[in-house]
Amino acid sequence: MRNIKLIIEFDGSDFCGWQRQPKGRTVQKVIETAIFKATGEEIMINGSSRTDAGVHAREMVANFITNSTIPGDKFREALNTRLPEDVSIIKSEEVEENFHARYSSKGKTYSYTIVNRYERLSLGHQYLYHYRYNLNIDEMKKACQYFMGSHDFRAFMSPGSSIKTTVRNIKELYIEQKGDRIKIFITADGFLYNMVRIIVGTLLKIGNGKLKAEEIEKIIIEGNRKRAGMCVPPNGLVLEKVFY
Amino acid sequence: MRNIKLIIEFDGSDFCGWQRQPKGRTVQKVIETAIFKATGEEIMINGSSRTDAGVHAREMVANFITNSTIPGDKFREALNTRLPEDVSIIKSEEVEENFHARYSSKGKTYSYTIVNRYERLSLGHQYLYHYRYNLNIDEMKKACQYFMGSHDFRAFMSPGSSIKTTVRNIKELYIEQKGDRIKIFITADGFLYNMVRIIVGTLLKIGNGKLKAEEIEKIIIEGNRKRAGMCVPPNGLVLEKVFY
Repeated sequence: MRNIKLIIEFDGSDFCGWQRQPKGRTVQKVIETAIFKATGEEIMINGSSRTDAGVHAREMVANFITNSTIPGDKFREALNTRLPEDVSIIKSEEVEENFHARYSSKGKTYSYTIVNRYERLSLGHQYLYHYRYNLNIDEMKKACQYFMGSHDFRAFMSPGSSIKTTVRNIKELYIEQKGDRIKIFITADGFLYNMVRIIVGTLLKIGNGKLKAEEIEKIIIEGNRKRAGMCVPPNGLVLEKVFY
Repeated sequence: MRNIKLIIEFDGSDFCGWQRQPKGRTVQKVIETAIFKATGEEIMINGSSRTDAGVHAREMVANFITNSTIPGDKFREALNTRLPEDVSIIKSEEVEENFHARYSSKGKTYSYTIVNRYERLSLGHQYLYHYRYNLNIDEMKKACQYFMGSHDFRAFMSPGSSIKTTVRNIKELYIEQKGDRIKIFITADGFLYNMVRIIVGTLLKIGNGKLKAEEIEKIIIEGNRKRAGMCVPPNGLVLEKVFY
């Protein structure tokens, strides 16, 4: 019995998200099928995150227990030759028995990319969120500081998950702008359901003047979902990295 | 009778190219359908280029003659509301009677983007060509000068089009590198069938050491398609701009 860790890149455009489900094409299922083809074993893999439909990953992490004799680093090619073009194993390795992609995780970084222009967007629309109205980027940058640190982020969560605590620690949140592209990076010890997409929606609400940067503090304290911004679409979101 | 010029952005991933054909979804057909919905007119539009399946455009140009009373600049929104997400009208305007998107064109710029890394690529695979082997970028940059200017480029053409001359004038050809991304820009007065993709394939043949930069001169003179590089896949190719 060996424990294999995978680093996975995928294009979420044509997936119903990560998690295996009765109907619909999911990343988990596609990888489990490739493992079955390579080893003959019907295995459940543990993913670090259950990304939603349309969300992408540059470095998703997963692990699985196998009886196969394939060396840890050879799983990469063994699976890649059996995977569709939109899922790639970037790295595979044997890890210690108690490593678990989800429970061992110490944090994650996501990015969210917005194209801010008046004209409609088609090129790259599966990776970008088109925002048509003017944005005050300086105000958005100013707002980032209010999210930093350990807070109860229940105002920035969609319902639908059962969790013990809504406290999370945001370690990094910053905005990069290049031409009409606005890229937001966020790192935390963990994320609530839709937390990144609601924080981005809240930053947009600040950028277009409907909310002031200073109000973030109050929204966090009050924990009122309605005062925060919308949950932006999944396509701009990329799971960049998982930390252990 | 008015002549309307459109600037069009499209994601070629789900299209069988630009040109209308009996079967298959094409950009031309989708726009003509939108025009029909907006004006009730069954119109043929003239595209500046007949891009292949999988090729994208940031600024494709087209024109059409209409009896409609929609103001030139209002066609943008009139069509955008009737177009699928992967085609967008960036600009529309009324132009003089004799403007023709194809015949009036004085030149075009294309870009081609390569990701040069060992690991397989999934994220953005519809816009990027994955090249696994080491590339000598300096040698590729050196090779660019040999393509510049007016030459008979029949060695860099796929068969299948009827044209009067295979002489074209390359006005600009340069390579930008950022991390593992290599972006090639090429501007010419016109392009032969698959010319950009074969020039990029030839630059890769130089980058991996199978051809010397100086040999380009001889390949052009001899006009031997077999000595040039492969025709790289369409997905890395973007029609950037058309000049008038």
